[in-house]
Amino acid sequence: MTKERVCVIGSGNWGSAVGKIIAENVLKHSEIFEAEVRQWVFEEDFKGEKLTDVINRERENPKYLPGIKFTSNIRAVPDLVDASRDASVLVFVLPHQFVRGVCEKMKGAIAPNAKAISLIKGLEIKPEGVTLFSEEISRKLGINVAALSGANIADEVALERFCETTIGSRSQEDGELFFKLFNTNYFHVNVIRDYVGVELCGALKNVVAVGAGISDGLGYGSNTKAAIIRLGLMEMRKFGQTFFGTVEDTTFFESCGVADLITTCSGGRNRKVAEAFAKTGKPIDVLEKQMLNGQKLQGTLTAQEVHQFLSARKLTNEFPLFETVYRIIYENAPLESIVRDI
Amino acid sequence: MTKERVCVIGSGNWGSAVGKIIAENVLKHSEIFEAEVRQWVFEEDFKGEKLTDVINRERENPKYLPGIKFTSNIRAVPDLVDASRDASVLVFVLPHQFVRGVCEKMKGAIAPNAKAISLIKGLEIKPEGVTLFSEEISRKLGINVAALSGANIADEVALERFCETTIGSRSQEDGELFFKLFNTNYFHVNVIRDYVGVELCGALKNVVAVGAGISDGLGYGSNTKAAIIRLGLMEMRKFGQTFFGTVEDTTFFESCGVADLITTCSGGRNRKVAEAFAKTGKPIDVLEKQMLNGQKLQGTLTAQEVHQFLSARKLTNEFPLFETVYRIIYENAPLESIVRDI
Repeated sequence: MTKERVCVIGSGNWGSAVGKIIAENVLKHSEIFEAEVRQWVFEEDFKGEKLTDVINRERENPKYLPGIKFTSNIRAVPDLVDASRDASVLVFVLPHQFVRGVCEKMKGAIAPNAKAISLIKGLEIKPEGVTLFSEEISRKLGINVAALSGANIADEVALERFCETTIGSRSQEDGELFFKLFNTNYFHVNVIRDYVGVELCGALKNVVAVGAGISDGLGYGSNTKAAIIRLGLMEMRKFGQTFFGTVEDTTFFESCGVADLITTCSGGRNRKVAEAFAKTGKPIDVLEKQMLNGQKLQGTLTAQEVHQFLSARKLTNEFPLFETVYRIIYENAPLESIVRDI
Repeated sequence: MTKERVCVIGSGNWGSAVGKIIAENVLKHSEIFEAEVRQWVFEEDFKGEKLTDVINRERENPKYLPGIKFTSNIRAVPDLVDASRDASVLVFVLPHQFVRGVCEKMKGAIAPNAKAISLIKGLEIKPEGVTLFSEEISRKLGINVAALSGANIADEVALERFCETTIGSRSQEDGELFFKLFNTNYFHVNVIRDYVGVELCGALKNVVAVGAGISDGLGYGSNTKAAIIRLGLMEMRKFGQTFFGTVEDTTFFESCGVADLITTCSGGRNRKVAEAFAKTGKPIDVLEKQMLNGQKLQGTLTAQEVHQFLSARKLTNEFPLFETVYRIIYENAPLESIVRDI
């Protein structure tokens, strides 16, 4: 039996943290996996050197995950086709805007029996429908794609602090393989079938976090915040079950559901920027510049996309929390409507 | 049709906060309820006066809920039999150790068609079985008893900050009545049938909060805490479904489940004292004296009771979080086992 060759596509903060886990796990399961893990790194300059050279020499990604050492069996590769050649296990962990281009390029290179898992954050919600990135990859490459999401702040995972995660996989066989690739004694993996629910949670939670941040900014207490989190979880579930028949109740009890929502509504940039929005009255784009170096906030974008999607179906009334977040951010609705209108 | 006469039994912090809501709601629903609400107040001295006299004159309980005014239709009554005479709606909101004595005394006084709701925190867990206070009251008085629990910090409710709560009622008719008695535009009531689940959540959450506090004391991050909260929620559910056939999955999505657990694990005395326990190494009873004026911590007591209950059934292995909290507090297990052994 040929062993599985693993390729990690992406090398940011989260990609580096999971790259570390994967490199350790392939050595533990050497009967299944080739020892070498290739990681596609978008080449850039790091203090006058190529980033891939620094990673391969230092066994560390000093730009995106400084201070964390990798085992020596992971190799940073700047060329996508080289990185993915004959790979049978693909781990997608890169910003969603690069997914299509990447799939196009690696199409001819990967092994015929390849399977993939998506750790990509977000969804593409357009008025005409919702695109899951796992399904997008699946269509582009013609392979099965699972999804992984959970209460997993990358820096804490890299420090080997205990947490859990959820893998959604239609294929039981792939689910077992990905379990071996990701599970450790500090990173507990639960495998479920509902990959759609896993991905939906990872995107919709950010809308709820904006609501929680507004509540924090208004100085409402912990009863109110807990209520917003709970109502948010129920709207996430309703969204999933209304537009995707296969989404299951139990998914929201998994790490990708309730646990990730709790983490995102405690710390998290979406909560923080929304809190500042409520306290200062500054527009979101100004706060993005001040607080996020101009990066776009995920939660407000998703709130807008969800609004357009629901409007096209005349269902905005059915999701009062999502809708109220949208109206506060984009239509100058009063901040207090976060509790009055839900 | 005779109108319902409401009696509130108890007048501490939470009793005063719900007394305020009830007094306002009976006026709104004057077709159903008598305007006067009687509240049994354990008589004590307040600055040289009787507490009941002060409450009735000031429309405020300056000892347990200072600064919050009641409507004038609530009357503090020091004698339990007077307070409960002909009462057809009984709201129990007092420390659990007084339940039996109180029921004994009011037995002959209440209306023959009386129904009750328990807001009492906690359970009585003995090796031989679990006693719900709603069922205890039901047995003593021979009437139907519902339960109310949720993410409801009393001071925040009194300030009319938005939150939710859950009422569990076997009887649909009583459920509708209690909805009218408690629901307001800032205190949203959901009525479900699973009163057992509602009461279990209110007690078992405190064990989970001790675990969350230990994690905080060790400086573990938000991934870990979210994982402990999630695993705790799953053990609460398993406990309910193993020992009470009627407990439903959906109860844990209600305010009494996930929302109350989030609040309890964010602020809350159980979390705080456990954090100090992990940080300082001082025994719990010393911390109770220093931090709680000598009051007993609910979560550690419940952890011990749960342990004895599970031991008697040889089922401690099935509830690793509950058991680990017990072993850390009572058997000097290392603090780190909070993540290692769950």
